Amino acid sequence: MPETLPRESGITPKDRPSREWSENRAGLKKRFLHVRSATETLAAPLSAEDQTVQSMPDASPTKWHRAHTSWFFETFLLQPHAPDYVVFDEAYNYLFNSYYEAVGERHPRPQRGMITRPSVAEVTDYRAHVDEAMSRFIDECPADALPLIELGLNHEQQHQELLLTDIKHALSLNPTWPAYRIPGQNPAANDSAPKLRWLDVPAGLHTIGHSGAGFAFDNEGPEHSVFLHDAKIANRPVSIGKYLDFIADGGYGRPDFWLSDGWDAVRRNGWEAPGYWQRDGAVWMTYTLHGRRPVREDEPVAHVSFYEAAAYAAWAGKRLPSEAEWEVSARAHAGGNGHTPALNPHPRHLEPGFSQDVWEWTGSGYLPYPGFRAAKGAVGEYNGKFMVNQMVLRGRSCATPPGHERLTYRNFFGPAARWQFSGFRLAEDI
Amino acid sequence: MPETLPRESGITPKDRPSREWSENRAGLKKRFLHVRSATETLAAPLSAEDQTVQSMPDASPTKWHRAHTSWFFETFLLQPHAPDYVVFDEAYNYLFNSYYEAVGERHPRPQRGMITRPSVAEVTDYRAHVDEAMSRFIDECPADALPLIELGLNHEQQHQELLLTDIKHALSLNPTWPAYRIPGQNPAANDSAPKLRWLDVPAGLHTIGHSGAGFAFDNEGPEHSVFLHDAKIANRPVSIGKYLDFIADGGYGRPDFWLSDGWDAVRRNGWEAPGYWQRDGAVWMTYTLHGRRPVREDEPVAHVSFYEAAAYAAWAGKRLPSEAEWEVSARAHAGGNGHTPALNPHPRHLEPGFSQDVWEWTGSGYLPYPGFRAAKGAVGEYNGKFMVNQMVLRGRSCATPPGHERLTYRNFFGPAARWQFSGFRLAEDI
Amino acid sequence: MPETLPRESGITPKDRPSREWSENRAGLKKRFLHVRSATETLAAPLSAEDQTVQSMPDASPTKWHRAHTSWFFETFLLQPHAPDYVVFDEAYNYLFNSYYEAVGERHPRPQRGMITRPSVAEVTDYRAHVDEAMSRFIDECPADALPLIELGLNHEQQHQELLLTDIKHALSLNPTWPAYRIPGQNPAANDSAPKLRWLDVPAGLHTIGHSGAGFAFDNEGPEHSVFLHDAKIANRPVSIGKYLDFIADGGYGRPDFWLSDGWDAVRRNGWEAPGYWQRDGAVWMTYTLHGRRPVREDEPVAHVSFYEAAAYAAWAGKRLPSEAEWEVSARAHAGGNGHTPALNPHPRHLEPGFSQDVWEWTGSGYLPYPGFRAAKGAVGEYNGKFMVNQMVLRGRSCATPPGHERLTYRNFFGPAARWQFSGFRLAEDI
Amino acid sequence: MPETLPRESGITPKDRPSREWSENRAGLKKRFLHVRSATETLAAPLSAEDQTVQSMPDASPTKWHRAHTSWFFETFLLQPHAPDYVVFDEAYNYLFNSYYEAVGERHPRPQRGMITRPSVAEVTDYRAHVDEAMSRFIDECPADALPLIELGLNHEQQHQELLLTDIKHALSLNPTWPAYRIPGQNPAANDSAPKLRWLDVPAGLHTIGHSGAGFAFDNEGPEHSVFLHDAKIANRPVSIGKYLDFIADGGYGRPDFWLSDGWDAVRRNGWEAPGYWQRDGAVWMTYTLHGRRPVREDEPVAHVSFYEAAAYAAWAGKRLPSEAEWEVSARAHAGGNGHTPALNPHPRHLEPGFSQDVWEWTGSGYLPYPGFRAAKGAVGEYNGKFMVNQMVLRGRSCATPPGHERLTYRNFFGPAARWQFSGFRLAEDI
Repeated sequence: MPETLPRESGITPKDRPSREWSENRAGLKKRFLHVRSATETLAAPLSAEDQTVQSMPDASPTKWHRAHTSWFFETFLLQPHAPDYVVFDEAYNYLFNSYYEAVGERHPRPQRGMITRPSVAEVTDYRAHVDEAMSRFIDECPADALPLIELGLNHEQQHQELLLTDIKHALSLNPTWPAYRIPGQNPAANDSAPKLRWLDVPAGLHTIGHSGAGFAFDNEGPEHSVFLHDAKIANRPVSIGKYLDFIADGGYGRPDFWLSDGWDAVRRNGWEAPGYWQRDGAVWMTYTLHGRRPVREDEPVAHVSFYEAAAYAAWAGKRLPSEAEWEVSARAHAGGNGHTPALNPHPRHLEPGFSQDVWEWTGSGYLPYPGFRAAKGAVGEYNGKFMVNQMVLRGRSCATPPGHERLTYRNFFGPAARWQFSGFRLAEDI
Repeated sequence: MPETLPRESGITPKDRPSREWSENRAGLKKRFLHVRSATETLAAPLSAEDQTVQSMPDASPTKWHRAHTSWFFETFLLQPHAPDYVVFDEAYNYLFNSYYEAVGERHPRPQRGMITRPSVAEVTDYRAHVDEAMSRFIDECPADALPLIELGLNHEQQHQELLLTDIKHALSLNPTWPAYRIPGQNPAANDSAPKLRWLDVPAGLHTIGHSGAGFAFDNEGPEHSVFLHDAKIANRPVSIGKYLDFIADGGYGRPDFWLSDGWDAVRRNGWEAPGYWQRDGAVWMTYTLHGRRPVREDEPVAHVSFYEAAAYAAWAGKRLPSEAEWEVSARAHAGGNGHTPALNPHPRHLEPGFSQDVWEWTGSGYLPYPGFRAAKGAVGEYNGKFMVNQMVLRGRSCATPPGHERLTYRNFFGPAARWQFSGFRLAEDI
Repeated sequence: MPETLPRESGITPKDRPSREWSENRAGLKKRFLHVRSATETLAAPLSAEDQTVQSMPDASPTKWHRAHTSWFFETFLLQPHAPDYVVFDEAYNYLFNSYYEAVGERHPRPQRGMITRPSVAEVTDYRAHVDEAMSRFIDECPADALPLIELGLNHEQQHQELLLTDIKHALSLNPTWPAYRIPGQNPAANDSAPKLRWLDVPAGLHTIGHSGAGFAFDNEGPEHSVFLHDAKIANRPVSIGKYLDFIADGGYGRPDFWLSDGWDAVRRNGWEAPGYWQRDGAVWMTYTLHGRRPVREDEPVAHVSFYEAAAYAAWAGKRLPSEAEWEVSARAHAGGNGHTPALNPHPRHLEPGFSQDVWEWTGSGYLPYPGFRAAKGAVGEYNGKFMVNQMVLRGRSCATPPGHERLTYRNFFGPAARWQFSGFRLAEDI
Repeated sequence: MPETLPRESGITPKDRPSREWSENRAGLKKRFLHVRSATETLAAPLSAEDQTVQSMPDASPTKWHRAHTSWFFETFLLQPHAPDYVVFDEAYNYLFNSYYEAVGERHPRPQRGMITRPSVAEVTDYRAHVDEAMSRFIDECPADALPLIELGLNHEQQHQELLLTDIKHALSLNPTWPAYRIPGQNPAANDSAPKLRWLDVPAGLHTIGHSGAGFAFDNEGPEHSVFLHDAKIANRPVSIGKYLDFIADGGYGRPDFWLSDGWDAVRRNGWEAPGYWQRDGAVWMTYTLHGRRPVREDEPVAHVSFYEAAAYAAWAGKRLPSEAEWEVSARAHAGGNGHTPALNPHPRHLEPGFSQDVWEWTGSGYLPYPGFRAAKGAVGEYNGKFMVNQMVLRGRSCATPPGHERLTYRNFFGPAARWQFSGFRLAEDI
């Protein structure tokens, strides 16, 4: 095994392994196998046909997610650092590279749904091949490689969430609205929404960003100071009940509430409700991973774009919080019991805890923190090159793998995106 | 069983059953089962993944072809005329209607690749369900229904050809160029092209079109007189060897050979050779259903658009034949031994016979013959409503099911289409 | 002066000058000045602003028409054949070439509206410069050049008609609906439509196409035989009154009347009436070159696409005539008084005469006649390269310059075009 | 005259008139006439044809700018507040509303180039009509109206700059590259670039934003605290000489320097140099308002998108400054002599002063300042509804009217925009 990883692997001092993993390879291996198997569990209810289709350029086939996450370990760990590793199939480097320009040419993103071969079964074999090699690699690799393994696991968890949101979009296009899983796994869905309260955000210098203990993506740092003004922030996201008031008040037909680009999106796309909603007579129905059913007033609104979140806030005479306000409040109100929410196929209100079952649009553009520098090499493409034209979302969602969430986490999507479990909470100046 | 079929079924006196089937239901049933099973044979090498994808709006998934051809029998025969027939799945009427406005709303054509459910296995069950019901129906149905069964079988044969051309397109988009079948099934592929000869087309009144004996599509009639001028027509389609001369002479870069719309297509699509050709150094490679290999000079050129055929003809100082010239010549030179060409995954030159292994673009627009009237009702949408913006192709191709070809057959595609096995032969005025 | 024109000028024996011009240069010069000045008369009511804009890629600015028609004389006559001719501005060859690939690169068609310079005044100077040179040229040029001058004049008359239809489209986009001319110049507009009669088209061999006496475009020949079947043809185009019945009967909402591509066009464009019609409460208004006013039932319907003409015919249980049927009937019923209809800013029914105030869609594709060959060189691009994807229109329209019409004339547009004064008459089989 | 302006006029306490104008109506009138006449001076070299065209949806015709700025005074001041005012033409409210939803329907932006009527001459009359009415209005109006007049004048100055950048774009599409003005008005164009120096940005709390004295747009406030980290900022924008090094180093071909969306833009648009640059053999030529000429190394680079600015910064190992860093530095280094740069048809380096002849892309998204609230009513649409998907530019450009610039000014465009005089300077962390 090579003694040290080359610089260009993207492992910089700031990414040094969190202590628990670097001192405990057995624990890392266990976690590796756990994360890898969680992907397969999510894919299990899906047929070969389901796993192959791509319903829009933003989404990817299930099969592709399963292969690409394996490609990540093969490309960034096994190929450069495991001397005896035998590549599973040379063609996969072209087929399953997502966006790493430094790694070479790749299959065009909108054509991922055309990859009928390799088959689902071959991808299963590919995953087993990589898992076996990685199991050996974790035992023997230099300590410097461990942060990159940790990155690979966090990367795979991100794709687990995308796998769910992408297959939801694909299945929703089938006019028979098939369920991903049978109903009945969401017993708390009729819980009432927690009472709305307003939490203080005190003016002054605050510190946000990740400080270096434990894993974090590069875009979460560096930790830095930020000056906030006096404000208030809601204790939970907006619920469907209130959002229905916005709709009933003509919200989707009144340009004065909307950003100009948002109003264009409303008219161009014919939006008159959140994503996956369809009017059925007097009732709003929604497609969920459990199938189609009426919307429920006590759930947080989800599948809204940033434009809709901002329009609702204008209608309500409020605004969206900045990501700094969100993080400062989350630190203050996160609750102390280390409660980890479970994976849930549809969002509901959670209590206690600040983060909830929907990613929350903030009023902050996705831009680098002061002092941010992308790593050199391919891994440096992970986050930095997307820092324009997107808005930051904070928190987590019902589709976020348990343990993947973090108060400093910066999720990001374009302002028109609706296929994620995206909601929002309100804030206001004092 | 109903005594007579209602008018709106589309069965008109002109479509009365050819004698052999109406007097021999056992023969018709045998033929029914033969055609139906031929579809399954073509689909057999394809995985569930292969059968699901749609590579462009013009093409359809294999699974869709298999279900749609069954839907045709269910919708036009079993549902209206078989009293005890139980519909397999109500949703299929929406999912697998192709373009029959009279039958109701249908799934948008460009979204056929999103139908991951029903699965390939369920479609197999659907076919068995329909086959069983049709087997009984053929024994008991009124004689008036027989022409519609015959139409359904010819319809299914058309989709067999589309199944092959569509899957060729889909597999060609996979950068690993997978083969539909293993090489070796095309032993005659290295035959030399027959010597080019020019056949006379004598001036005068000729009769073309289908006369009523045996099955024909409505667009092949009525039989009628047409006046032709003295001309000559080639005895076979243009071969790749000559087409390479056209390319070498700068054919794709000289607007004077091209129709104006053709020249636009060349520049917009970046065409510099027929479809599926790719330059690999000094060699032109082509993707075939057997996989990728160099082009062969002695094969007929295929996968060219009407625009390319017309440009080649202009370059050669000739023209394309009209469909009347083609049919008159084919009748005169068809050969007398009833030779039926076999299905062949790639075109080669055939001898003897006028029709060859490629559909041949003619210079005739796809327009109604004098006296043509579409049938009333849904079946009347079969051909008539497409009579604009398309050119007529005559003959057959290597993918045409044996026995489906006919000298009066009028195939038609838009002038830019290249995914069919489309070539051309030349003609000239005297 | 050169003794003979080079071959590549496009002048072939078949285009030899009609006797009256070749023997009478004074007459030709008079006609030249008359046609040229007619263009200026049409442009006179238009401001510099009006003359500059291009309202869609199919249309051209008035200024461009005025310059391009001058460019034609400069490029095909003065530059190659007038030894002392001084080019007005070298840049114009790029700016005002329409589509002649053989003459070199040219300004992109959709960008014609960006040519703010040269100014309208400079184009006026350009026209005077060309007129002066041509006046001398006509006196001195070789006889062989005369057919090309005649072609240039007919070309200019075509652009006169386009000038009117293009400016109608441009002005119609102004929400104030300005009039090109003041109302009152169309006194016969309230005439009642002539009684509808059905004329016989006798079966048998007929001769159509231009025979060589007098000027004709190359696409009108060669004269040739065609076999027709027994049919009837209406004595005049369909009037607005009947077309309103089609609309009232749901014609724009019933796919069974429409060609498939036509039905797509209806839905994509939201058509629910002919071009320039707008519903104003219970009344259909139409924009005319005189301004906006209610439609009048006794006028022929205009600004319909081929798709609408074909759908109306299907609704009426009839069909469109072929161009051969139209020409044979027109020869038989043209009337003997040499009546030349006047330019008229809006179509009305004319009596007597077969040709009327609207171009008439036929059921014939725009394809070469038997034996047609385009001329060599740039002039050969005039008509031949457009012979695909278009339908033939016959007759003339209210915007056709008097004297430009001809019974063998083949006009052609794509089946969705509506900005010409395009109507149709019906035919039926016997 | 009404005693007070209604609330919905958008005049809020925060917008109260700066003292000099409210106490000196004569001065305001003089300034009004000066600004209005400056627009006419800019339009004077342009013909009616030039003033009519719209070269892309982002740009507007000169005539439209002249009319729209008049419409602003008519709509927001004269119509609601001048009792005897007679509207010039009712249709103008539809034609010349830019984007104010609250004022009603308006002409579609991409169709502004179709408005051939009213003519340029009529627009001149319209301006005179409004000027006369405004002259009287300024004498008599309530003091509350004065801030809105001031807003109208600043609005008109913004359109003066757009008039220049829009006509540059339109004229550049003419293949003869006409000059807006004759060469020779830019005598300092060969000045050498000032020596590059790095200025300190000290860490700590800073105050930015407009404080209320004198006019400012609403998006410049409220004044607020921001925490900055230690950094350095360049004393001037990047010059063409250095930018040529970036190009020569393959900058436009190496994805590692580019944001992902930027790289897409490079490939989709075929960018290989700044806007208006064209390679002519070994020389880079540029189109300027003076005509076409070689680029000059000592000028600041202009007509670059945010993407190009960010890619250059990555190539140089630096970054773009935030808008707060820019403003803090500009306040510290603005120089004390109140020097106002002159209008200049092409950017050059200026000395002394921080602001230069190009707008400078910053790394800051265009988002509301803490505490920002848009005004109620139509005027509230002025800036707020554009606060997404755009980046902030700071400074001024050679086309900014003298006196219009301000250190707190926040200009904004989408990251792909290049038709403004947009450059950038570098910053770096310490």
